[in-house]
Amino acid sequence: MKPEINCELTRDILVRFLRNEIRKVGFQRAIVGLSGGVDSATSTCLAAEALGAENVLALCMPYRSSSPDSRQHAEEVAGHLGVPLVVEDITPQVDAYLDNHDDASPVRCGNKMARERMSILYDYSAKTEALVVGTSNKTELLLGYGTQFGDMASAVNPLGDLYKTQVRALARHLGVPGEIIDKPPSADLWSGQTDEGELGFTYEQVDRLLYLYVDKRLGPEALERNGFDAGFVARIMKMVRGAHYKRRPPLIAKVSERTIERDFRYSRDWGY
Amino acid sequence: MKPEINCELTRDILVRFLRNEIRKVGFQRAIVGLSGGVDSATSTCLAAEALGAENVLALCMPYRSSSPDSRQHAEEVAGHLGVPLVVEDITPQVDAYLDNHDDASPVRCGNKMARERMSILYDYSAKTEALVVGTSNKTELLLGYGTQFGDMASAVNPLGDLYKTQVRALARHLGVPGEIIDKPPSADLWSGQTDEGELGFTYEQVDRLLYLYVDKRLGPEALERNGFDAGFVARIMKMVRGAHYKRRPPLIAKVSERTIERDFRYSRDWGY
Repeated sequence: MKPEINCELTRDILVRFLRNEIRKVGFQRAIVGLSGGVDSATSTCLAAEALGAENVLALCMPYRSSSPDSRQHAEEVAGHLGVPLVVEDITPQVDAYLDNHDDASPVRCGNKMARERMSILYDYSAKTEALVVGTSNKTELLLGYGTQFGDMASAVNPLGDLYKTQVRALARHLGVPGEIIDKPPSADLWSGQTDEGELGFTYEQVDRLLYLYVDKRLGPEALERNGFDAGFVARIMKMVRGAHYKRRPPLIAKVSERTIERDFRYSRDWGY
Repeated sequence: MKPEINCELTRDILVRFLRNEIRKVGFQRAIVGLSGGVDSATSTCLAAEALGAENVLALCMPYRSSSPDSRQHAEEVAGHLGVPLVVEDITPQVDAYLDNHDDASPVRCGNKMARERMSILYDYSAKTEALVVGTSNKTELLLGYGTQFGDMASAVNPLGDLYKTQVRALARHLGVPGEIIDKPPSADLWSGQTDEGELGFTYEQVDRLLYLYVDKRLGPEALERNGFDAGFVARIMKMVRGAHYKRRPPLIAKVSERTIERDFRYSRDWGY
């Protein structure tokens, strides 16, 4: 048993989701960080279909160590869809900080880059009156394999309930070029880095496990009976639980009758 | 009727809140962005009391247009508490971006600065194994007078349920220097800027209204019977509703049985 997807139905739901959620809060336009990977290519396709390509702006934000392939893939997707693409090199800002912090680990460097990209996306959001469309998939969000207040930040996210393997299937259905779908997923921090190399398992493996654990609510024993290694199950459950803080807003100490995110809590579009 | 505060009880609750919430997720240390204003001074005092001054790091992150008074006030608070202070000038990074975007309005510039500060706080969080303590008060959070994924971002926020006027009273009780409490609150983006000048009302006025509207759940007619101008009531209600998106996580399209933040939703410290 693994996560399946009805591509045509999902496409229809997600296109309507973006159109409705963006227009009902008074916006006509969207902005997407287009990295050259399959997730952001898929979000860009969906946004272009929802709002019209001319109402979507794609931002490609390479760092000096980013692969030239990534930028080329971003240009290919934007060109194919007719979505305008702006390239913003984040090297000067990021290096202005990192040059004075040479103790920074690769993870810290990656987080700095992801947050700079968020900051630029939101600046363009204000500049062009466009909502930021998210690109984090369910696998990344569950594992916490992303940067809080960085690539995990957005206004509306069409991919957050789709596992990575489902995003790939949807991307193929939407006509995303095969080389983008089939290349090894990578955060593109250094040459040769791949998600699966860093995580130590494939998306096929972990998506099957996450689907049974999260969607089907199987416990550890049942997961082992389904053929999963006990150590793998324990590791993934720990990752999912340990990353939960990244999926929740800041914790506020309650001292009044009505506290934000507790008793005072409405949908994002309250007021529209 | 206005928001009151029992300072000694509130201090005790907030100190225990910080100590418990930080320690139970395996941390011993905290980090605070110390601007020189009353809110961050109060958060820093509470964190020092909760964890010991030596376990708190204060980061002062001026931009070239920041008032020299702000830095001096930050140094005064840190010195008084015995909390180590690091100064990180954000000018090089911020200008590396803004120099190429000279169309940026003051609000966009301020948001860029606030997000750069968040990015640095979180880098120090990773570097020093310390949780980021928030400094946004209830007035700012309700009005949306802050930067999403900027100063509104934190791990734990002791002030988020206290109105600005209550923070001032607590600050006085905690021994924050009077000049910091009594100076006009300012985002410190340009010389002479003040919150109250920009907003067009005082914190005393708006806190009384917000308290009756949010905590006491009075509607517009009842608020007018309490002496508030109809236009002021309408304006504040619109601000509170319109800013709700800043207080909520990104919206994810639901396409599965268990969706993050809908059916799959635990407390931040699930797993500890």
